[in-house]
Amino acid sequence: MADTFGVHSALTELDVTEAFRVVDLAGVLCNGILGASIARQRRFDIVGFVVLGVASGLAGGVLRDVMLNTRPVAITDPAYLFTALAGALVALIFAIDGRRWRWPLLVIDALALGCWAATGTIKAQLAGLGLLSSLFLGVITAVGGGMVRDLCLGQVPAVLGGSTLLATPAAAASLAVLLTPAPARPTWGMAIGIVVGSGISLSSRRLGW
Amino acid sequence: MADTFGVHSALTELDVTEAFRVVDLAGVLCNGILGASIARQRRFDIVGFVVLGVASGLAGGVLRDVMLNTRPVAITDPAYLFTALAGALVALIFAIDGRRWRWPLLVIDALALGCWAATGTIKAQLAGLGLLSSLFLGVITAVGGGMVRDLCLGQVPAVLGGSTLLATPAAAASLAVLLTPAPARPTWGMAIGIVVGSGISLSSRRLGW
Amino acid sequence: MADTFGVHSALTELDVTEAFRVVDLAGVLCNGILGASIARQRRFDIVGFVVLGVASGLAGGVLRDVMLNTRPVAITDPAYLFTALAGALVALIFAIDGRRWRWPLLVIDALALGCWAATGTIKAQLAGLGLLSSLFLGVITAVGGGMVRDLCLGQVPAVLGGSTLLATPAAAASLAVLLTPAPARPTWGMAIGIVVGSGISLSSRRLGW
Repeated sequence: MADTFGVHSALTELDVTEAFRVVDLAGVLCNGILGASIARQRRFDIVGFVVLGVASGLAGGVLRDVMLNTRPVAITDPAYLFTALAGALVALIFAIDGRRWRWPLLVIDALALGCWAATGTIKAQLAGLGLLSSLFLGVITAVGGGMVRDLCLGQVPAVLGGSTLLATPAAAASLAVLLTPAPARPTWGMAIGIVVGSGISLSSRRLGW
Repeated sequence: MADTFGVHSALTELDVTEAFRVVDLAGVLCNGILGASIARQRRFDIVGFVVLGVASGLAGGVLRDVMLNTRPVAITDPAYLFTALAGALVALIFAIDGRRWRWPLLVIDALALGCWAATGTIKAQLAGLGLLSSLFLGVITAVGGGMVRDLCLGQVPAVLGGSTLLATPAAAASLAVLLTPAPARPTWGMAIGIVVGSGISLSSRRLGW
Repeated sequence: MADTFGVHSALTELDVTEAFRVVDLAGVLCNGILGASIARQRRFDIVGFVVLGVASGLAGGVLRDVMLNTRPVAITDPAYLFTALAGALVALIFAIDGRRWRWPLLVIDALALGCWAATGTIKAQLAGLGLLSSLFLGVITAVGGGMVRDLCLGQVPAVLGGSTLLATPAAAASLAVLLTPAPARPTWGMAIGIVVGSGISLSSRRLGW
C-alpha cells in the first residue's frame, strides 16, 4: 500500500489543501458556465446570467458548508465568487448552445458532478462525520447547485426525474472516495471519485440509461 | 405539581434525551414514508423515492438545526438518515395509495406534525430562545420538510393554501409545549403537544375545516 | 474627512447598533407588508398572510446570518418576528392593492431593498469578509426574502427576469456602502446606500428601464 499510495507522502499538507481547492473551483467554473448558459436559452439579461451562474456554481458548496456548520468557503475565499462570475462571463461571451455544444456541456457537467461528490465527501470525512452522512453530503454538494438552479427556473429539479442520471453517479463517486484508504483520499480518492462519477454520468447519457 | 409531573423526576437525563430522539425519529419515519409515497404517485424511479423520502423526512429538522447554528442532527446521528431511507423503502415495497390508505396516511402525517412541532419547540427553548422564536422554530420544524418536498415537486407549498391545516395545528402543538412547566416539557409537554397537534390536524380533515 | 464624518464620533457604540437594528427592522416591516399583500391578491387565508409576510420579511436576513455562521437575528431578537407579523397584520387589515397603492408599494419595496443591501454589506464587513463577498451578502440580504416568497408562490424569482430591477440597485447600494470610509459606514454609508439603492430602483420603474 505504501507503494500504491506513496505519492501522497511526497505531497505537503499545503499541496493537498490546494489540490482540493483547485478541484472544487473546477466544479464551480463548470457549473457557473452551465447555469449561465441556461440564462442565454431563456433570453435573460446579464443579471440572469450572474444569478444563475453564481447559484449553480456556489449553492452546492454553500449547502455542504452550512450543514457542516462552517462559514461557506464561497464567501471566505474570494476565488469562489470570482470563478463563478468568470463562468457566467464565459457563457455570456460565447454562444454556448446548439448541437455541437451538447457533448462538451455534458462532459463539463459530468466532471463537475465528480469533482463535487469527491470534495463534499472528503470535507465531511475530515469534519468527523460517519460514512453514510459523508456520502449524503457528497451527493448534496454535487446535486445542490443544480437543484437550486432548477427551482429558480420554476422546474422540478432534474435529480428527481426520469432518464438523466445525477444522484447515482454522485453516490458512486462518493462511495469510491470512501472505499479509498483515508490518507490517500485527498489524492487518489479524489481522482478515482472524479473518474467514477463522470464516467457513470457520461456512460448513462451515451447509452441512454 | 410535583404530583402531576413527578413522573419526570423518575427519568434520568439519558431517558429524556432518548425519548426526544425517538419522537423526532418517529416524525422522520412518518414523513419519509409520506414523501416517498408521492414518488410512487408521480411514477418516479428509485432515486426519486430516496430524494423525496430524505427531503421530507430531514429538511424540517435541518432547517431547525441550521437556524440554531448547530450541526444538523440529520448528519451527526446516522439513525436519522437510516430512518428516512427506511421510510422510502417502506413506500417502495408497499403500494401506499388509493382509498384505503387515505386515513392511515393522514394519521401518520398528523402524528409527524405533532412530534416535530414538539421537538422543535423544546430544542429552541433548550437553546435559550424566547417564546415567540421557539413557537416559530416549532412550526418550521413541523412544516419545513413538507415545504421543501412541495417546492421540489413544483407545487405551491400546502402550508400556504386553502383547506388543509398545517401551520395552525403545528402552532397549537408548540403553544401547548410552551404552556407546560419547563421541567416537564420533554415528557408531558411532548406528549400533550403531539396529542394537541395531531388532534387538531385530524379533526380539521374529518370535519372539513 | 473628520468634518464630513464627524457626526459619527458623536454617536456611542450603542447608537450605531441601534441605528443598524432600526434600519434592518424597517426593511422587515416593508417586506412583511409587501409579502402579505400578495396573500390578499391570491385570496389566501390568514395563515397565508403570516407565512408570506414572515418569509418575505425574514428570509433575506436569515440567509445572510446563516452564511455568516451566526444564529439568525430573526430568532435571537423577538422584535424581528413581531415586526414581520405586524407587517402581515397591516396587509390583513388594510386592502393594499389596486391602482392608488401601486406607487406607495414600489416606494416601500425600494426602501427595503436599499436598507437590506446596506445592512447586509455592513454586517459582512464587520464579520471580516472581503469586498466582493460583502457585496454578495448585501445583494442576498436584499433580494433573498423576495426570492423565497416567489419560490413559495410557484413563480420564477423576479430577480431573474426582465424589466424590474432588483439585483442592480442592490449591488449599487452595497457598492456605495463599501466606497464609504469604514468608520462612517454604519452612519453615512447606510444613509447613502439606502438613497442609492431605492433611488435606482424607483428610477428604473419610473423610466421603464
